[in-house]
Amino acid sequence: MKLNDIPSIGDLMAAHERIRPYIEQTPLLQSGQLNAISGATLFFKCENFQKAGAFKSRGATNALLQLDKETMRNGVVTHSSGNHAQALARAAALFGIKAYIVMPENAPAVKVAAVKQYGGIITFCKPTLAARESSTEEIVTKTGAHIVHPYNDYDIIAGQSTACIELLRQGPLPDYILCPVGGGGLLSGTLLASRYLSPATKVIACEPEGANDAFLSLRSGQLIPSNNPQTIADGLLTSLGSRTWPIIKDNVHDIMTVSDEAIVHAMQLVWERMKIVIEPSSAIPVAVALSGGSIFKNKSIAIILSGGNVDLEKLPWNKNL
Amino acid sequence: MKLNDIPSIGDLMAAHERIRPYIEQTPLLQSGQLNAISGATLFFKCENFQKAGAFKSRGATNALLQLDKETMRNGVVTHSSGNHAQALARAAALFGIKAYIVMPENAPAVKVAAVKQYGGIITFCKPTLAARESSTEEIVTKTGAHIVHPYNDYDIIAGQSTACIELLRQGPLPDYILCPVGGGGLLSGTLLASRYLSPATKVIACEPEGANDAFLSLRSGQLIPSNNPQTIADGLLTSLGSRTWPIIKDNVHDIMTVSDEAIVHAMQLVWERMKIVIEPSSAIPVAVALSGGSIFKNKSIAIILSGGNVDLEKLPWNKNL
Repeated sequence: MKLNDIPSIGDLMAAHERIRPYIEQTPLLQSGQLNAISGATLFFKCENFQKAGAFKSRGATNALLQLDKETMRNGVVTHSSGNHAQALARAAALFGIKAYIVMPENAPAVKVAAVKQYGGIITFCKPTLAARESSTEEIVTKTGAHIVHPYNDYDIIAGQSTACIELLRQGPLPDYILCPVGGGGLLSGTLLASRYLSPATKVIACEPEGANDAFLSLRSGQLIPSNNPQTIADGLLTSLGSRTWPIIKDNVHDIMTVSDEAIVHAMQLVWERMKIVIEPSSAIPVAVALSGGSIFKNKSIAIILSGGNVDLEKLPWNKNL
Repeated sequence: MKLNDIPSIGDLMAAHERIRPYIEQTPLLQSGQLNAISGATLFFKCENFQKAGAFKSRGATNALLQLDKETMRNGVVTHSSGNHAQALARAAALFGIKAYIVMPENAPAVKVAAVKQYGGIITFCKPTLAARESSTEEIVTKTGAHIVHPYNDYDIIAGQSTACIELLRQGPLPDYILCPVGGGGLLSGTLLASRYLSPATKVIACEPEGANDAFLSLRSGQLIPSNNPQTIADGLLTSLGSRTWPIIKDNVHDIMTVSDEAIVHAMQLVWERMKIVIEPSSAIPVAVALSGGSIFKNKSIAIILSGGNVDLEKLPWNKNL
């Protein structure tokens, strides 16, 4: 794919067909109780039940399936706070290639263990973007591995779009889609799928207050990188990229932010009422739906529950800790 | 329904139509990793995502929908360790009638809270069948409430059968269905649905070693009540009943028991590999599938995950406690 070649509807459909044998069609669930609380009709796209526990398996699988044999021989490398790492390690194992994973030292233990279990070769680094990138470059120099960026890659974006393609087929075309944003891979894919397949649907990006670089970027009209983000949503600490930002800027309907307190409340509510355990990142669009006020009244809203990789022994609402 | 009138296929289908607007069609999920571990093809019927968090909503809703207005006026009463209580309280609230719930003192806090939230009127008693029954009788005398037994009732059995009806439609007709057994309501419904709709499917009852009254009953050919059961599977402490025992005796293919240790391991495995939190009772058929040996090799197996009402702050594998 060329540098500025934003994925077409054909690219999205090809990605969907390509990855189908390797991923789950995740369920689209509803909850009468959460409908009552929100005043809207909510549809939850459960990517927490996706392979490796998050939507990231879609993009990683799509990216690897397009590598030539020559490239595959040296393996792949990425830096990730967790879910992309697991997804890439899993996909690499499927196709018999090596996956070098650069992870920040503060990545949750459960995510580190999962990467190891899928056979990923881990290198730890300081939890900064600069440290992640330099560690990744070192591995490339040493091994010749191919970099699979967690989000700033059109094949990744096309892969992530398939969660939205599925949800548009599984339920009614919704008035709104609420989607978390970190680096913007899932959001970009969702925006493209929605634009091509359901142009009347409004996609709203959902971001933690403590990592609101996308919010600031959209308000100012120019890409503002993340600056010392502080949030419980450990999957959303990254900045938008050169490929995700233009797609987001041109297509997103709005962006809303929520506090960590609201995120934890939403996580707990989803567990108590739906018996689904989601990561903090996934709880952000739920919190937005609950706090979004009158614009959501009586509307149909699809919420992408992006992942479920949580350490059950360290739940943020657990008073025993 | 008459005393010895075992539900017909028409009764089951009528129940399915009757309760449809009030319950979830729960998803049937798969896991490549659990297939690999078990050597079989597993289909998980996720009743943990059912209304009120367990299959019990099916039976309770079916039973209440068949009461006449006169009976409804005095309300309904039951004794239950938890899930039937929640289900009955929820269904009663749907139809605007009172639900008196007798619960053992040692019922999990999360289940007590849920019954209260649905508006159930709780009376606590000692955790014995005798105490439950006498407390229930007292309430009947005082209020004229109608008893809805948790399992020894053909309307309840017909309601519970609908989980099996659904799973037979959602996936291939399986070689085996693995179903937990406590009082036998879910198992009886599953046996009838399977006999009518997929007679080649073999249903295996799954029971905790520490509450193996159904195992002893089937081995001896006569109903042996539960005697001081000790198991982590708090939903399965009850004995078989006069209506469930004959259905089970005549239709079940086999019964297998597992240790509490195997139950906890299966719960943890389902969480780690599928991101689904299930109660200990639900983990029993999973443990059976994992330990069942050669008879399950390369077979298709449907597992009914009966409920998900767990206190996440007290997970049995949590080393922080």
